[in-house]
Amino acid sequence: MKLLPETLELITEQLSRFPGIGKKTAQRMAFDLLKWPADDVRRLGELIKASVDKIGTCSICGLIAETDPCPICAHPNRDSSVICVVEDTMDVVAIERTGRYRGKYHILGGILSPLEGVGPDQLNIESFIQRLDAVDEVILALNPSVEGETTALYLARLLRERPIKMTRLARGVPMGGDLEYIDEATLGRALEERNPL
Amino acid sequence: MKLLPETLELITEQLSRFPGIGKKTAQRMAFDLLKWPADDVRRLGELIKASVDKIGTCSICGLIAETDPCPICAHPNRDSSVICVVEDTMDVVAIERTGRYRGKYHILGGILSPLEGVGPDQLNIESFIQRLDAVDEVILALNPSVEGETTALYLARLLRERPIKMTRLARGVPMGGDLEYIDEATLGRALEERNPL
Repeated sequence: MKLLPETLELITEQLSRFPGIGKKTAQRMAFDLLKWPADDVRRLGELIKASVDKIGTCSICGLIAETDPCPICAHPNRDSSVICVVEDTMDVVAIERTGRYRGKYHILGGILSPLEGVGPDQLNIESFIQRLDAVDEVILALNPSVEGETTALYLARLLRERPIKMTRLARGVPMGGDLEYIDEATLGRALEERNPL
Repeated sequence: MKLLPETLELITEQLSRFPGIGKKTAQRMAFDLLKWPADDVRRLGELIKASVDKIGTCSICGLIAETDPCPICAHPNRDSSVICVVEDTMDVVAIERTGRYRGKYHILGGILSPLEGVGPDQLNIESFIQRLDAVDEVILALNPSVEGETTALYLARLLRERPIKMTRLARGVPMGGDLEYIDEATLGRALEERNPL
């Protein structure tokens, strides 16, 4: 005898596919759904279904978007001569939140990782090369990790022959950070790259 | 300019309504969905929509089920003279997993909690009373908390006039527990209610 409704089991199974959502959390979510107003549940189901057809990636920069080109590539007032290279769309969200950047982006859709079998072919690099002719500066805004450094070096080598300025995000102590608790690698780097006051 | 697709924002907003799912986790889930095969996403959306019409509660015991009566109430070989009262469907799942119970259930759909404004009227008690005529034993399997005790006392008072045996789950040290780490309330209770070997 199956005790729980099959639909509930199937929803639990699918929800537990999300990263960070275990079997228990997925089950709690499925049960919680039964307490929602019927219209809200239908709406969530409809939104999830609609995401397949409505959301895609920008054919120029690779940003997750509902339009192609995406709002940033289509924006008339953003500086096309600067491209900021990031790993994924969430990084663009983070940079946009600063309000300090008016150039364009390029989303790699991942990061080089020989260990996980991610090579240049799996990344959105081909279309990046095609954009470089009208570009003066490329900012590498990759995560400060081994994979981030590897990817940055790979891209730097690709751009070596071109008259393009390459920069990357400054490393140092984070704003509001407490020196006592900052790891030695960050603090060491901040010391080496100290700026005149 | 809206940066992220509206559908994605709406999905994030809805997912963060689930208990234990914060804004960040919901956003990570929404982004992850974009990497799923299209058919799987459509299927999840369809399942969630279908849950509204397919899943209900058993009109006899209150169990969440796709059929009415539920599989347990409809089962010919379960003992109708014993009813085990629980807070919700998850408790039934836990008890069924033990494989030690062959009676029926009654799901209160909550627990008395004056602090949170949950009174007897909000619980599935009316239909419980109607089931009592053919019942010999009521097992109160409520959580060992203040609310659980309050609810148990309330139900005990309701049943006082009837020739029904009332029992509740044994309290004591959990199997596999380490005496050193068991809280004093549990250990105290286990001492008081010690059994002959």
